[in-house]
Amino acid sequence: MLYLVGLGLSDETDITVKGLEIVKKASRVYLEAYTSILLVDQSVLESYYGRSIVVADRQMVESNSEEILRDAQTEDVAFLVVGDPFGATTHTDLVLRARELQIPVQTVPNASIMSGIGATGLQLYNFGQTVSMVFFTDSWRPASFYDRIKENRAIGLHTLVLLDIKVKEQSLENMARGRMIFEPPRYMTVSQCAQQMLEIEEEKKEGVYGPDSLAIGAARVGGKDEKFVAGTLAQLCDSDELLGAPLHSMVLLGRRAHELERDYAREFAVDKELWDKLWAEEYGKQL
Amino acid sequence: MLYLVGLGLSDETDITVKGLEIVKKASRVYLEAYTSILLVDQSVLESYYGRSIVVADRQMVESNSEEILRDAQTEDVAFLVVGDPFGATTHTDLVLRARELQIPVQTVPNASIMSGIGATGLQLYNFGQTVSMVFFTDSWRPASFYDRIKENRAIGLHTLVLLDIKVKEQSLENMARGRMIFEPPRYMTVSQCAQQMLEIEEEKKEGVYGPDSLAIGAARVGGKDEKFVAGTLAQLCDSDELLGAPLHSMVLLGRRAHELERDYAREFAVDKELWDKLWAEEYGKQL
Repeated sequence: MLYLVGLGLSDETDITVKGLEIVKKASRVYLEAYTSILLVDQSVLESYYGRSIVVADRQMVESNSEEILRDAQTEDVAFLVVGDPFGATTHTDLVLRARELQIPVQTVPNASIMSGIGATGLQLYNFGQTVSMVFFTDSWRPASFYDRIKENRAIGLHTLVLLDIKVKEQSLENMARGRMIFEPPRYMTVSQCAQQMLEIEEEKKEGVYGPDSLAIGAARVGGKDEKFVAGTLAQLCDSDELLGAPLHSMVLLGRRAHELERDYAREFAVDKELWDKLWAEEYGKQL
Repeated sequence: MLYLVGLGLSDETDITVKGLEIVKKASRVYLEAYTSILLVDQSVLESYYGRSIVVADRQMVESNSEEILRDAQTEDVAFLVVGDPFGATTHTDLVLRARELQIPVQTVPNASIMSGIGATGLQLYNFGQTVSMVFFTDSWRPASFYDRIKENRAIGLHTLVLLDIKVKEQSLENMARGRMIFEPPRYMTVSQCAQQMLEIEEEKKEGVYGPDSLAIGAARVGGKDEKFVAGTLAQLCDSDELLGAPLHSMVLLGRRAHELERDYAREFAVDKELWDKLWAEEYGKQL
């Protein structure tokens, strides 16, 4: 059996009781550690589970799944995923390959940022499609998120923006020379995300959002020290100190918001008067 | 401290280790049991937790929260919610009231149907806003879901449809006579949902979807016997026997779907040839 086990969002105790039992008895345990991370180290997980874990990087999962699936027709293999197992495409792909090999699959769901973001007080019913924001480079500034946000905002919906993480990346030079030297991990912050969003708006000028658009930055959702900062995109360009350590994510608000959402998120506003003023002007509209 | 503890989707072992520790040490434990249900009885939870639970109905949570929040400034109160604590509006409201009383609040996230539905193989990125479907009566056929689905489908997105549950409801007669006699619980099935959707399309005739639109019915998501049935809305009108016991939910597909989604969900199709044919005609379009 291949078990896809969600680990939740924060630390070693966010695994479900069902998931923990599976991990303890599986023949082999893999940890997918490139689409998201927990806020604790692998060694903490290993000591908590009482067993060793193989960290599966992108190359292993996408190109060398035979090793992960080896003998899973008769043995139990646990594949651990931060958040919920079906948050990312690659895990669907792993299940498809397991099916081809007649390997039974069982999933153990857990909290995902897609639902955990409800802790901002924003109603999950009022979210449109989720978008991803990648680190811009001088030559690569993918802006497909802009059109998606435009669609969501046209019908008054919130947009969850998931922020890029870079783990086990090689520099171009090291890659060219075949040196297996990896850069330190990087996690996009809410400030970087807000800046990139405003840059693209300045380029496209379609008025999808602007410096005064309301948004909520979120850090370490589901953790004991989770933190939310609500304000304008301009304010969030300068929110990293308030938010603290990774992981960050962000919600750009839609106009079709409920007063309960306003009241709940107001608690997180860097400037409550500005929050109230902008809300009264633009938000809480029943479209 | 007020702890909002998510229980996940299926049985007593879907609670997180963190959540279980909180339940075991809290002074009082409440279970919200009217917006969703687990697939096991209260007595199973009580025996697993090793303590008694107070079932909190809608009236208690919405109108008598003082009892739930009593002394939570100094004592630990655990409020258990099926799925994730922020799936439903009423829990946001409870936190706002706790804040007014200077009661600290901590949330323990868990799997929600909003993310768990990824087990259909449909990508969570491709979902628009979620809608709810209530039981129609002769005089009450709320159709606001139709406009929401129209918005989602216009931009090619999937729609998760959450199905009504009725627990602890009184008949009109018993209510009028003040008799505290409750009707047996009712859980909407995928067939009922598909029928109601087609009825509203027949009334409105805006061509938002039709009998040939592809959809996936889901039953007991996250449970060991979770079951998916993929097909047209017409086929899903007759899927209850295949799907089995509650809870059910449904996804109406959007056209902007990926071939990986097609391949994954094809496994669940009642008629794989029809699935392939309709998909080729209408789906997998990059809008």
